[in-house]
Amino acid sequence: MRIDGRQANEIRPLTITAPYTKYAEGSVLIEVGETKVICTASVEERVPPFMKGQGRGWVTAEYSMLPRATQVRNQREANKGKLGGRTMEIQRLIGRALRSVVNLQALGERTITLDCDVIQADGGTRTTSITGAFIALAMAVNKIHEQHNLKSFPITDFLASVSAGVVGGKPLLDLAYEEDSKAKVDMNIVMTGNGQFVELQGTGEDAPFTREELNTLLELAEEGIRGLIERQKEVLGPIADKIGGSGRAAGK
Amino acid sequence: MRIDGRQANEIRPLTITAPYTKYAEGSVLIEVGETKVICTASVEERVPPFMKGQGRGWVTAEYSMLPRATQVRNQREANKGKLGGRTMEIQRLIGRALRSVVNLQALGERTITLDCDVIQADGGTRTTSITGAFIALAMAVNKIHEQHNLKSFPITDFLASVSAGVVGGKPLLDLAYEEDSKAKVDMNIVMTGNGQFVELQGTGEDAPFTREELNTLLELAEEGIRGLIERQKEVLGPIADKIGGSGRAAGK
Amino acid sequence: MRIDGRQANEIRPLTITAPYTKYAEGSVLIEVGETKVICTASVEERVPPFMKGQGRGWVTAEYSMLPRATQVRNQREANKGKLGGRTMEIQRLIGRALRSVVNLQALGERTITLDCDVIQADGGTRTTSITGAFIALAMAVNKIHEQHNLKSFPITDFLASVSAGVVGGKPLLDLAYEEDSKAKVDMNIVMTGNGQFVELQGTGEDAPFTREELNTLLELAEEGIRGLIERQKEVLGPIADKIGGSGRAAGK
Amino acid sequence: MRIDGRQANEIRPLTITAPYTKYAEGSVLIEVGETKVICTASVEERVPPFMKGQGRGWVTAEYSMLPRATQVRNQREANKGKLGGRTMEIQRLIGRALRSVVNLQALGERTITLDCDVIQADGGTRTTSITGAFIALAMAVNKIHEQHNLKSFPITDFLASVSAGVVGGKPLLDLAYEEDSKAKVDMNIVMTGNGQFVELQGTGEDAPFTREELNTLLELAEEGIRGLIERQKEVLGPIADKIGGSGRAAGK
Amino acid sequence: MRIDGRQANEIRPLTITAPYTKYAEGSVLIEVGETKVICTASVEERVPPFMKGQGRGWVTAEYSMLPRATQVRNQREANKGKLGGRTMEIQRLIGRALRSVVNLQALGERTITLDCDVIQADGGTRTTSITGAFIALAMAVNKIHEQHNLKSFPITDFLASVSAGVVGGKPLLDLAYEEDSKAKVDMNIVMTGNGQFVELQGTGEDAPFTREELNTLLELAEEGIRGLIERQKEVLGPIADKIGGSGRAAGK
Amino acid sequence: MRIDGRQANEIRPLTITAPYTKYAEGSVLIEVGETKVICTASVEERVPPFMKGQGRGWVTAEYSMLPRATQVRNQREANKGKLGGRTMEIQRLIGRALRSVVNLQALGERTITLDCDVIQADGGTRTTSITGAFIALAMAVNKIHEQHNLKSFPITDFLASVSAGVVGGKPLLDLAYEEDSKAKVDMNIVMTGNGQFVELQGTGEDAPFTREELNTLLELAEEGIRGLIERQKEVLGPIADKIGGSGRAAGK
Repeated sequence: MRIDGRQANEIRPLTITAPYTKYAEGSVLIEVGETKVICTASVEERVPPFMKGQGRGWVTAEYSMLPRATQVRNQREANKGKLGGRTMEIQRLIGRALRSVVNLQALGERTITLDCDVIQADGGTRTTSITGAFIALAMAVNKIHEQHNLKSFPITDFLASVSAGVVGGKPLLDLAYEEDSKAKVDMNIVMTGNGQFVELQGTGEDAPFTREELNTLLELAEEGIRGLIERQKEVLGPIADKIGGSGRAAGK
Repeated sequence: MRIDGRQANEIRPLTITAPYTKYAEGSVLIEVGETKVICTASVEERVPPFMKGQGRGWVTAEYSMLPRATQVRNQREANKGKLGGRTMEIQRLIGRALRSVVNLQALGERTITLDCDVIQADGGTRTTSITGAFIALAMAVNKIHEQHNLKSFPITDFLASVSAGVVGGKPLLDLAYEEDSKAKVDMNIVMTGNGQFVELQGTGEDAPFTREELNTLLELAEEGIRGLIERQKEVLGPIADKIGGSGRAAGK
Repeated sequence: MRIDGRQANEIRPLTITAPYTKYAEGSVLIEVGETKVICTASVEERVPPFMKGQGRGWVTAEYSMLPRATQVRNQREANKGKLGGRTMEIQRLIGRALRSVVNLQALGERTITLDCDVIQADGGTRTTSITGAFIALAMAVNKIHEQHNLKSFPITDFLASVSAGVVGGKPLLDLAYEEDSKAKVDMNIVMTGNGQFVELQGTGEDAPFTREELNTLLELAEEGIRGLIERQKEVLGPIADKIGGSGRAAGK
Repeated sequence: MRIDGRQANEIRPLTITAPYTKYAEGSVLIEVGETKVICTASVEERVPPFMKGQGRGWVTAEYSMLPRATQVRNQREANKGKLGGRTMEIQRLIGRALRSVVNLQALGERTITLDCDVIQADGGTRTTSITGAFIALAMAVNKIHEQHNLKSFPITDFLASVSAGVVGGKPLLDLAYEEDSKAKVDMNIVMTGNGQFVELQGTGEDAPFTREELNTLLELAEEGIRGLIERQKEVLGPIADKIGGSGRAAGK
Repeated sequence: MRIDGRQANEIRPLTITAPYTKYAEGSVLIEVGETKVICTASVEERVPPFMKGQGRGWVTAEYSMLPRATQVRNQREANKGKLGGRTMEIQRLIGRALRSVVNLQALGERTITLDCDVIQADGGTRTTSITGAFIALAMAVNKIHEQHNLKSFPITDFLASVSAGVVGGKPLLDLAYEEDSKAKVDMNIVMTGNGQFVELQGTGEDAPFTREELNTLLELAEEGIRGLIERQKEVLGPIADKIGGSGRAAGK
Repeated sequence: MRIDGRQANEIRPLTITAPYTKYAEGSVLIEVGETKVICTASVEERVPPFMKGQGRGWVTAEYSMLPRATQVRNQREANKGKLGGRTMEIQRLIGRALRSVVNLQALGERTITLDCDVIQADGGTRTTSITGAFIALAMAVNKIHEQHNLKSFPITDFLASVSAGVVGGKPLLDLAYEEDSKAKVDMNIVMTGNGQFVELQGTGEDAPFTREELNTLLELAEEGIRGLIERQKEVLGPIADKIGGSGRAAGK
């Protein structure tokens, strides 16, 4: 039995409010247990300089935490004058993961920026951001698809993410902060609707881990992500039916 | 009749959710029409270097907007590597205003930081931040008061803020974004529960204004702020009764 | 009787040297008592990116203090790597105030930058900067007017600024530093030649203030500003006659 | 047959020059094919503020590329005024990986900084940095061990790293730059001498990957890392015998 | 005959106003032709961290130009967020030069900061800054000497600086901007009262120069500096007599 | 006899490895005693904005030290977020010196960036950088000359640099770090193949110096630089014969 009464393979209660704000082309408030993230998708009709003139779009992400999203207040990165390493690492991960299911050719020369702002942090903020940002992305892509009469729907598959780790010798799915801080192995997994991996990041800073442990964690994650994608489908409703219809993602 | 059907002297619908997050000592989601701000109050048991050893506390504020709080996405200040002038101006205003109703001596050597994060902006984000931050502040001060058995309650009066302006020749209370962008005169007023001014900022960039116009705007504001303070009292409940019991604020 | 022997409604001795430097299109050394500011106006035949192609000009301001303009040496903002909040607040105020009396349409696609560099600070540096910068601006606009044969003179009215405050219970005009540091209410007022307000900033951090106090301070300021504008007219000579002939300012 | 004639499971020619510079407590020039990295270990007799007084040491890493380590010259991060996301991600990885085999308790209150400076980049700079930095670390730890008569040798196991990826449908070990740029899946693996994982980072930005592909890549990596550790032992000579004698690493 | 009618070995008209501002311990407005610099000396009763506890003082300098000190307006370094290379080079030169005539031991644990702010630039701003800063330094040192009853006067010799260059084939002393921009060789020389060199910086970017040319320039400079030091003595009056009485400077 | 057994007029052992890296158009590892610098020359087919459309090229330099190039580890400038004054001073010197022997007209609209990265520092890193960068520059210019069939070879003369100083009363050539730290006078000299000066920087922070001392140091330097240029000719082989064939350098 875990600290919050969950089973080892159980995800925390999930609430998704979409749309959540009125200006963004896509927006979500996603709550996984006590972790709460606002994800918005903003569309611009231009691409960054390094992609100009290729006829392809771009998807990128930014991640931030409100100063008091955590137990102890964190100084704003705007005040420090620069982004920290953790923030950079996470927003690069979110952007890379989302691009893996977008056909940038089909999207056309536009940029979609996913902003993931953590209102409250209780473990799993990066995986929750990915799961929520996918919904905001799909909402925004749907608007582009309709307004610009795109030939195909530029999202090629569903995408969600979850953490798993070994705590007190036991493999557990979706670690809350208290579990995470005691974990010997900490893993973040991003998977597509067809059950393949997009990102896999495992860290054993406190102790190395074996192939067997790795395999158990991957199985927990697979099951968890399958459930998250079911919920994404419910929230997206008719938009969900358009996803994956256009063939393969054209990576960077 | 105004664009949203309000009377000239009417404030937009006000919703206050408090507490709003689980870690902060005080927290509020304040919604004035479509303007939504999360205000949290964080307590630290130390003061900034320039105040050390004086036996007095400090109250300060930070203000930020989520990138897509606005119609067009704004670049994060953390990415630009510095705070903009508007942000600095606003957070200095919020901090100054709140300090005017805090007895820093009675507070003791602690710092309370008010974080005002705008989730959605539709005009009046700085005045809404002040009105909401006051509640978060009172909640946090109440916790300190109880835990540390302070002799007196360090908040000396209520405090709220509203905007007023001249739009199309007519003085209006609490401008929404669309009104604000057409205003010839724009004024932000901060008042205490006893009906005195703490801050007054009037700008006539597009056209100068007369003493008569000024007087009308101040009367609108006075009425509006009286209403806001009523609502603060309801939200704060028993905490409201402690406010002002300790005599005068000891300014910086 | 005030610390320097002045009456409550008396401004400190005013000296204006114009032109003061040889390269700038307009330049002034303005001394109000011991407060000394160099104001220069620099003209560029282009506007910032956000104003391109609108056929209108731009007026902006920058403010700085020499490190030893004050009793204790201040670190240079260039060394800190960023502008402080106070600097930003002040230079935004100066720019906004000056734009209120410039017909940007009549100015054409050019930028005038007002640099206000405080050589010595003894209270009232921001109001002195505005009063001095107006003269530098008028000198520069006059050069443009002559060289480019503008149809109308792009300055629509005179503009000057002064401070007023309540010190030891008494409303006083034009506070020197020592008075300012003891003031319970501190107000900066910017007015035009026709006696209307352009900016009004009142702060009661140490104690809130009443409508009556506000009214007295505004009356002191009105009288003071009338005197300052007289002096601007003398310094500007024939240029003064051109001001206001072109109708209304076209704000931003 | 691969572009450089290697087998799928073959690592590029490896040259290690140690010591390489005269001031650092440990230093290595490691060359894996055309990838060349200077790794130095610098010892300081103090720990960062957040670790003071715990009696434990700290190990951290910094990573940089000379501007012309790459085909096209890169702007220096010192000129940009900040570290890029890729640099931060890599140096956090190197530091975390090395700490996993250091008994920080046994090290005592000292900091070892590993500087990994890439002289020439041809794929695998982060994995090469880890493999090289481990040697520099062991050299520096050995000096501390001798000078300060530590009770146990603070390194608990060997550590090396390699990349693997799927290129043109084939799983390959140790990707050169040309292979890496065509890889559909790219994986970096860090393992200890006892064959366990410390870090696992797999990315399928261009296409997701299956469990089977993952397993094949991990097997290639295991074999490759075993070979690298053999070479580390040769280079370290008698120091190698001390490693792992002191029991388990005490993580952060 | 030179553009301004001077002889080859003639310095421009020199005006020195001292003291120039009321707060600084030493202050000067120095005008060499159209080049105008405000130099202030500020005393602090502490030294930078790297010099603590050695019983010796520190002398340092900062240099800046007002944005419109030049023909075309320069962006403020505070706005760029960093000092330019030219500024750094110049302020390091000024500090180094002044320290060469200060007995830091005799000064005691205090820091004197020389701020050189160029109001108008017409060539020779760095040499003019050194000549002016020496006077401000002597004024400040004299105050310390009197207030703290120092045993010896900590300035060991006079110090001044001038430029010389080869323009149109002719060696000229004290180049004005127009001459400087055409110079093939540009040299800045700093000398002491006893006729020795403290700094020598010669640049032949447009054409290399010979030993003979070097010798002629040094002779011009020697003569020019002798004249400048005469003027320093006049301005300093009784303070001048104390200089050099205490023996040798104790360099860093 | 000097600390390392050299004569007063003797340069330390010199080793030049060229080419040193595979991507740069020119590259050198230059070792002068224990001082080791990697110099690379990178060619871009464009010039900085301020030189566009003039038909002339640009040569610039950047200088950096690896953190542990020195006895005590230095913090990276990329981490500090800005270049230090010493770095700026040195890279400006290197760029200026190299431009003095380049015919920018003959080079055409291209930029050559010289990167000088100090691997190990034992005195004379800036002079060693210049001597080494000249070789990398010549290699890169030779490639441009051949690929673009330039009419004339854009390098007009050889260029090398050495330090000299007065240590313990004796003038010495090419100071090692230990000598440099005791030097009363420190001088860096840059000369061309025809024996003329390009840069001369002499500093007597610890004690001023006389004309006689200056002359002796210049003679030592002349002799030393003659030897360095001999070695440049050997290393450059056939490229050396092309240098100086095209007449005079066209400075900036």
